Amino acid sequence: MAQLPSIPKGTRDYSPEIMVKRNYIFDTIKSVFRLYGYMPLETPAMENLSTLMGKYGDEGDKLLFKILNSGNFLSDVSDSELQERNIPKLTNKISEKGLRYDLTVPFARFVVQHQSEISFPFKRYQIQPVWRADRPQKGRYREFYQCDVDVVGSDSLLNEVELIQIVNEVYQRLKINVRLLINNRKVLAGIAEIIGYPEKLTDITVAIDKMDKIGREAVQQELRERGISEEGILKLQPILDLKGGNEEKLVQLRQVLSESETGLKGIEELNQVFNYLKTLKISIDIQLDLTLARGLSYYTGAIFEVKALDAEIGSITGGGRYDDLTGIFGLKNVSGVGISFGADRIFDVMNQLNLFPSDSNTTTQILFVNFGFREEQFCLSYLQELRNQGINAELYPDTAKMKKQMAYADKKGIPFVALIGENEINSGIVSLKNMLTGEQKNIKLNELAEELKKETI
Amino acid sequence: MAQLPSIPKGTRDYSPEIMVKRNYIFDTIKSVFRLYGYMPLETPAMENLSTLMGKYGDEGDKLLFKILNSGNFLSDVSDSELQERNIPKLTNKISEKGLRYDLTVPFARFVVQHQSEISFPFKRYQIQPVWRADRPQKGRYREFYQCDVDVVGSDSLLNEVELIQIVNEVYQRLKINVRLLINNRKVLAGIAEIIGYPEKLTDITVAIDKMDKIGREAVQQELRERGISEEGILKLQPILDLKGGNEEKLVQLRQVLSESETGLKGIEELNQVFNYLKTLKISIDIQLDLTLARGLSYYTGAIFEVKALDAEIGSITGGGRYDDLTGIFGLKNVSGVGISFGADRIFDVMNQLNLFPSDSNTTTQILFVNFGFREEQFCLSYLQELRNQGINAELYPDTAKMKKQMAYADKKGIPFVALIGENEINSGIVSLKNMLTGEQKNIKLNELAEELKKETI
Repeated sequence: MAQLPSIPKGTRDYSPEIMVKRNYIFDTIKSVFRLYGYMPLETPAMENLSTLMGKYGDEGDKLLFKILNSGNFLSDVSDSELQERNIPKLTNKISEKGLRYDLTVPFARFVVQHQSEISFPFKRYQIQPVWRADRPQKGRYREFYQCDVDVVGSDSLLNEVELIQIVNEVYQRLKINVRLLINNRKVLAGIAEIIGYPEKLTDITVAIDKMDKIGREAVQQELRERGISEEGILKLQPILDLKGGNEEKLVQLRQVLSESETGLKGIEELNQVFNYLKTLKISIDIQLDLTLARGLSYYTGAIFEVKALDAEIGSITGGGRYDDLTGIFGLKNVSGVGISFGADRIFDVMNQLNLFPSDSNTTTQILFVNFGFREEQFCLSYLQELRNQGINAELYPDTAKMKKQMAYADKKGIPFVALIGENEINSGIVSLKNMLTGEQKNIKLNELAEELKKETI
Repeated sequence: MAQLPSIPKGTRDYSPEIMVKRNYIFDTIKSVFRLYGYMPLETPAMENLSTLMGKYGDEGDKLLFKILNSGNFLSDVSDSELQERNIPKLTNKISEKGLRYDLTVPFARFVVQHQSEISFPFKRYQIQPVWRADRPQKGRYREFYQCDVDVVGSDSLLNEVELIQIVNEVYQRLKINVRLLINNRKVLAGIAEIIGYPEKLTDITVAIDKMDKIGREAVQQELRERGISEEGILKLQPILDLKGGNEEKLVQLRQVLSESETGLKGIEELNQVFNYLKTLKISIDIQLDLTLARGLSYYTGAIFEVKALDAEIGSITGGGRYDDLTGIFGLKNVSGVGISFGADRIFDVMNQLNLFPSDSNTTTQILFVNFGFREEQFCLSYLQELRNQGINAELYPDTAKMKKQMAYADKKGIPFVALIGENEINSGIVSLKNMLTGEQKNIKLNELAEELKKETI
């Protein structure tokens, strides 16, 4: 046979088995989003490159997948331009569209483009694939799904509280034990101010963001390399070493940052969020973590990150408050806050911890063995009754050997197989085999639906 | 303000309002697919161009969106090749991936690639966008969703019957009145044989496929242009003019095609399908239509098309049996049958006929007006109770003017608004406003959930 066809590296097929599990995750998350009034949005896979370029830094520009213009894409390129072989310049001439790199920029573009029709605060969720021309490696793909939930057009801290509630509810439903880490960009800014380097906020946050990964020594070294004096590093230390519960930490911080207006504002925001949470039933652990900075430079207030407690895996959800999401497209003063659920990592955690429910109503519950024409006709109309009661049911389409039909049920993970031959038709009794236990029993046809419903609870 | 950002022509944003309706269609279709044991599959947006090229004809090759290779895409192109400006040749050198053009070729690629893991018959559905660099016009987009359901690896006619059952069930649930047209490619081949042009099957079917659109005269003219003699056209006439019900037509056809083995085989297939259907409760009208050919040359048996009866719109679902889907990738003798639901057209029909349910459990059912901090705290914990009972509920996040909050509810289509101020907190009675009727009534807090459930039934 010819060589098997393949798919581009860094991309994946989602087989039915995987899809059922992924859908379980997405359906759970979506139903929680809806409980809180978030509505679905979808944007096109292709955006104009003018929308995408310059939004993710130089490195991001390179990682955008670009679409070759249709037709004679060289019509606008001169011979000398061709010979010059200036790749960025040529790219610009032969490609005007690219695949979206994340869901945030398309969302900002949507909000600005449709600002006159949108009723603010605008609460939306968006679950779509994104594409990055990254070097593929374990756990890093060129096509992967993002699952974002944001509210824009309101600077109320109730939105932060709501997102924490959503995190709590989602992970309770998925049965994943998590801790939510929270920080505030204004507090980080206050710290930079207090140690004497307000202009080096980004350097400081990028360095301390790595605390978890590389440890204190290496962070101190990085701070040195980024031009922070020993005195500054020393001043930073007690702040990173704060001990106690969230409230105690806030009390100590308020002292340390008493000279920084921005810092105090950040503490006040954190304080309010904790106050709201007190009146709510939240079962997950929430921890103030001053080393949490999440690289992204556009956060301006709360910063969130969620870690799975029973699996060695990075953050599975993260996000924060940004005061100028839409400024890049000319719409000022629209504040928003949002988080993103990492579907691939959540999938891995659930697989690893065996958290997917074994019986899912999305798969076939019963297969009827095909014994021939007369039995087919009988089964066909009986299947209609079962399906009318919401039971996913199949008749094997060919009169194949029993062994083959059983193997089909087994491989597809169908929990029950029904055998209806001539005797069964005459007696109205079906022979039902439980594929998991191997147990076989006779049951009246008119009781089969109830039996199946009982078994799948 | 700067110019508003925009999206590439031929693409669309799906706003929340549209998304809710689209999801209603997709959810309905998916739940029917699952009742019949079909499982979800997703393939990557990008496929290798070697997978896509040559599968859709020369025109199709041109309409593929091609991805520019990352990095220095000219490294493998010589100066003379550049100057030659041979677009197809250059494209081949600077692009190795393209966006999928339909779901059929990626499905065939998946089946061949994973043939050793798949348990046949393989029943899958796939709902994903496809991309075509077509000239955008009304109703024709460059990105649109396809919704395919296929079974491969079984040539049993029960599969055809099952697809008809699915069509019946889907359109009953969507409340769209439809007629299903059915034909068989072997019957068409038999006709070509009988009128003396077996080698002109494609010419004949392409021409008679247009019967509905351009009428008999124009079809005859086209047949002439395609080299069919007057005698052949005359012989064809009675066949296209057959009258009566499906069974009567089959009886007459069997006479006409008595000399064609292939033709008789097609009639036998149709006959069997009709026989199976007799034992089933099918409410839609099913009509044998010999003018149905559906251009696509790969159908080998049954051909289906579904028309909405109450809207002027082309076919909203179509498909058929193909005996050699996977041959293009080197796997012979895998027969399949499938249909594709046209999501955009179904959407248009339902919008036009006002068939979308007005109350959907996917949108917010109640908004709580925000009167200030104390009320917020009260509402927050009460909202948790409502959500625990599965009610989608929101608290307006800011203490904005009443008018603004009401306008928000109105614009978002939220059917109920609850007013809880200090009096209400003390008395445990909430003032509930029905946004549709304007009616306002007082109701006990602990009865609100029940009331809302009653209202949304």
